[in-house]
Parts: sequence; structure tokens; C-alpha cells
Amino acid sequence: MTKTLVFGHQNPDTDTIASAVSAAYFLNKAYQVDTEAAALGTPNAETEYALNYFKLEAPRVIEQADTEEVVLVDHNEASQSVANLADVTVAGVYDHHKINFTSAAPLWFINKPLGSVATLLYYEYKDAGIEIPAKIAGLMLSAIISDTLLLKSPTTTSADKPALEGLAKIAGLDDYEAYGLEMLKAGTDLSTKSAKDLIDGDAKSFELAGQTVRIGQVNTVDVNDVFARRDEIAAAIETELAEDGYSTFVFVVTNILDSDSDILVLGENQDKVAAAFGVTLTDGRASLPGVVSRKKQVVPPLTTAFEG
Amino acid sequence: MTKTLVFGHQNPDTDTIASAVSAAYFLNKAYQVDTEAAALGTPNAETEYALNYFKLEAPRVIEQADTEEVVLVDHNEASQSVANLADVTVAGVYDHHKINFTSAAPLWFINKPLGSVATLLYYEYKDAGIEIPAKIAGLMLSAIISDTLLLKSPTTTSADKPALEGLAKIAGLDDYEAYGLEMLKAGTDLSTKSAKDLIDGDAKSFELAGQTVRIGQVNTVDVNDVFARRDEIAAAIETELAEDGYSTFVFVVTNILDSDSDILVLGENQDKVAAAFGVTLTDGRASLPGVVSRKKQVVPPLTTAFEG
Repeated sequence: MTKTLVFGHQNPDTDTIASAVSAAYFLNKAYQVDTEAAALGTPNAETEYALNYFKLEAPRVIEQADTEEVVLVDHNEASQSVANLADVTVAGVYDHHKINFTSAAPLWFINKPLGSVATLLYYEYKDAGIEIPAKIAGLMLSAIISDTLLLKSPTTTSADKPALEGLAKIAGLDDYEAYGLEMLKAGTDLSTKSAKDLIDGDAKSFELAGQTVRIGQVNTVDVNDVFARRDEIAAAIETELAEDGYSTFVFVVTNILDSDSDILVLGENQDKVAAAFGVTLTDGRASLPGVVSRKKQVVPPLTTAFEG
Repeated sequence: MTKTLVFGHQNPDTDTIASAVSAAYFLNKAYQVDTEAAALGTPNAETEYALNYFKLEAPRVIEQADTEEVVLVDHNEASQSVANLADVTVAGVYDHHKINFTSAAPLWFINKPLGSVATLLYYEYKDAGIEIPAKIAGLMLSAIISDTLLLKSPTTTSADKPALEGLAKIAGLDDYEAYGLEMLKAGTDLSTKSAKDLIDGDAKSFELAGQTVRIGQVNTVDVNDVFARRDEIAAAIETELAEDGYSTFVFVVTNILDSDSDILVLGENQDKVAAAFGVTLTDGRASLPGVVSRKKQVVPPLTTAFEG
């Protein structure tokens, strides 16, 4: 078993799948590491659209790491990774999140606050002089579009647009805006999803002041479509709170056309969440104008409110 | 106060001073950040030699960070940094150690297991197309020589020699081996140092399984010169154990010519330290043939023995 598994976070999104595929190829070409891209779940509808468009297979789904060495992409916190992370050696990390990580030995840990990990990897390829295959470039540009909502999210940095344009050229994609809108829309068909799928789809756990706060997010073109199913969604969240030991669930419903979100907060600490955003919760719900980024606009104020 | 302080670890060595100077210059040129290099102590004799040789001033000594943002070099653990680290924002990290770090927001965190942080920074300059001033190149090559013991330590990687050679060219240094030997020797004159200076000079604290283990290291050309002062050194260590709450003190005496070390272990957990290295301690002392690197050959086995 000398293979190195490369994988992203639980509830994989497009950036996590694209970065696993991209980093696995990069590490093989740059350092001759025997890598395999993997995923901690099946692709969501948006990622599925991108994989089909660029004719790529989804990475193998794993529940545990079955190699001695692993490389993490798009996450660095154990709570978002494989269950047996403590039993394997993390040889590298490519990420763009806040950091909560310890290691017993030095390792490659490249974390940059760019719009997507795919952006970071684009520059790693460039610096190393390694060519990106057209299909992988297509998946990487899909990841940039997904994480930055077509360069409109406040997480977008000056490095993302040149990377997106460079990748579109390699992938032979003439109109990345038209492609991107179709891809984003493919991810917003929520009508066929159960309430449990909605709240779980993109959810991540965060350890804040010793409590586990669960934050889910869905993209839509009309938040009222989602809140029409409030009772059903609230019941699913209550079940999860009771069964999984989360203290608080923050469900973020984001309108990708208007770049606004509504949140639904259940469980404990409603006062802290309200204070974090300076809003009043009505039946657990509040509007957060201009908020689209969990990483940049949801987690940091929550961290301050819980730990401050 | 929009200045960003750039500094390395407590008890600064040559790599920590060089990396602070080098990263401060790099961040200013690459991102127009208003930076100032600083240090958590005065240069040791080896660093002093390098600064004098290349006609550079030592960075300002600070005890606390007095800016809102800081960049850490050559360390990432709070226990090795300024006392008020929790009160400021870490905007970036350039390091080559194990990781024990948390942040509230994404940041630039570049950690690579290379021989020195100066090596890592050499490639950052190269990738960004920024010229390194000759004096700073001189200090950076001194850091590579110091951390890799002239490319002989097992921490040396394939990236270090090309960096050292590239920097020697920029610095206009024809014979870096001759320079390096003189610089290393300048750091081994221990006769004028008090026992307290010897044990404190390069010491770092490590949190292992909830206990604070202090590991000091001195370089010499004859370990018996140091152990001739065993009683005096042991008394200084006992005083520090009692006053500073360390559970264990591991004092590593390294012969830089033979690439071997002897350790002196005082305090609790002597059994764990002995087990970590598979040796028997006699009066707290044991020989560790081939061991020269605290980071690669001392801390990892201790971590395993304490936490395993």
C-alpha cells in the first residue's frame, strides 16, 4: 500500500471533487507520487453537471482512508474529514479555509485565502511548469465558478479571474459565463430533494467554544421556494440535532442571483447567532442581505460570537 | 497602525532572523504590505557573524506584537511566539515545522518540509519574479547553512542545495563552504556562556500530551567540553523546571563535525524519553548517534512516546 489517497471534505461540492482530481494528477506529475483521487460521498447535481460536461468519472467514494498516507484538499479540520484521520499520516494539505490542524511532523501545507482551491492549484501547476489536461481544466474552472458564484461572491480574489480565464482557454470553453450559469442552475433544483438531503447536502460541522455547530447551505433562485417547506425542514433539523449531538444548526438559504441569504436557526445559542449577525430571529429565521459565503461571512462572525 | 510585524520564534536562530528580514521585504515588494521585520530576542553569536559579514542590522527586538496584523515565520505554535498572539490577527505563516495552529479566518499559510524557511522563501521570490537584494541573499544562505549544517543534516532536502547556490551567486559569495564553516564555528564558542545561557539559547517548549516539554540544543565541536560542566548545567535546568512549570527538560548537545548528539534529560518522564530513543539514560545522559535535528529526529519520537 504505497498509494496516497487525495480527498476533500464530507458532503463534497464541486471544488472539493475538482481539487481532489486536480491535486492527485499534479502530485503524480510533479513528485511521482502514486496518487488516487477519492471522495467522501457522491457528487451533487452541480458537480454531476460539470463531470458530465467535461466527460470525467466521479472519484471513488470512500468512508475511511485505506492508505497510510493521505493528502487533504479543501479542508484541514478532522471534523470534516474521514473518521480514521488520526490513524493515517497527512502528507499534504491544499486548502483555502480557516485552520484547525495539528501534526506530529512537518508536511506540505499550502493554504491561501483564494476563491477556490482550484485557483490555488492552477498556480501550483503554473509554477511547476506542468500542463493541465483539458478535462481537468474544465472541472477546475467549474470549481472556481461554483465557489465564487461566477466571480460575484465576496470570497472572490484578484487571483481567481485570471485562473478561470486561463483554465477556460485550456479546456477550450469559449463562453464560461453561459456554461457557469447553466452549471449553477443545475445545482439549484431542490424540488426533488428530501428535507434531509437539503439540510445535509453541503453541511459542515464547526467546533466553536467546545460546541459542535452544524452549518448547512443551499443555493436557489428563490428563497421562498425553500421556506415554503419550513415545517418539513425544521423537523429534519430537530431530528439531526437530537441524534448527532449538534448544539446548534444554522441553515443558510442563498439566492445566487441576488447574492443574499436567509438563515434558519434551530437548537441552542439562538441569541449568539442573532448577535453574530446583528439581527432578530423570527421563528428562527432572519434575512442576511449581501451574505453568500459561509466561509467568509457566516463562520467568522459565529466564531467571534461563540468564542469572544 | 497599519504596519504588519514579521517575526520568528523565541530564542531566535539564524533562520528565524533571516526569514523575518526576507519575508518582510518579499511581502512589501509582492503585495505592497507595509512590513517591519522584528525578533523576539537578540541574535546569537552565529547570526551575529552572518549579520556582520553581510553588513545588515539586527531586527528590532519586541516582546509583544504592537500591530493588529502579524506574519509568523519559522514557527506556527503559540507557545513559541509573542505572549499576546491571541490578541492579534495572523495574516500569514511561512514555516517548515509540524503544525499546531488554529485561526478564525482563512489566511496565507505556507508550510513546506524543506531544510530552512529561507529555502522556501527563495522559491517564493523566484515564483513571484522578485529580485532578492544581495545582503538579504547573504543572510538567507546563512540560514540554509545553519539549519542544514552545511547540507549535512537529515533535514536537508533536494530543494536546499539549488537555493543555497542561487543565493550565493546573488550574494557574490564564491566559497559558501568556507564561509559556512566559519559561521557555524562562530556559533559554537560556548566557553564564555553561563549555564543558563547554554540551556536557554535555542530552547523551545512543546506541548506533548498536556505536558510542557522543554528542548534545548547547543552545537559544539566537542561534546565533552559541554559535559565537563554537567553539574552547573543540571543545576540551571533544575531551577528552570521548578520555576517555569516544565515537566521535562531535554538538553541536546550536538557535535556538528561528527553529526552526533548526546542528551541530558532532567525532570519527569525519563522513562518516556529513554523509550522514545531506545536508549538507557545514565545519570540522565545518553548518546544518540546520527541525531542532529531537533525537529526531525528529536520531537517526532518524543511526540510518539508521550502521546502514543
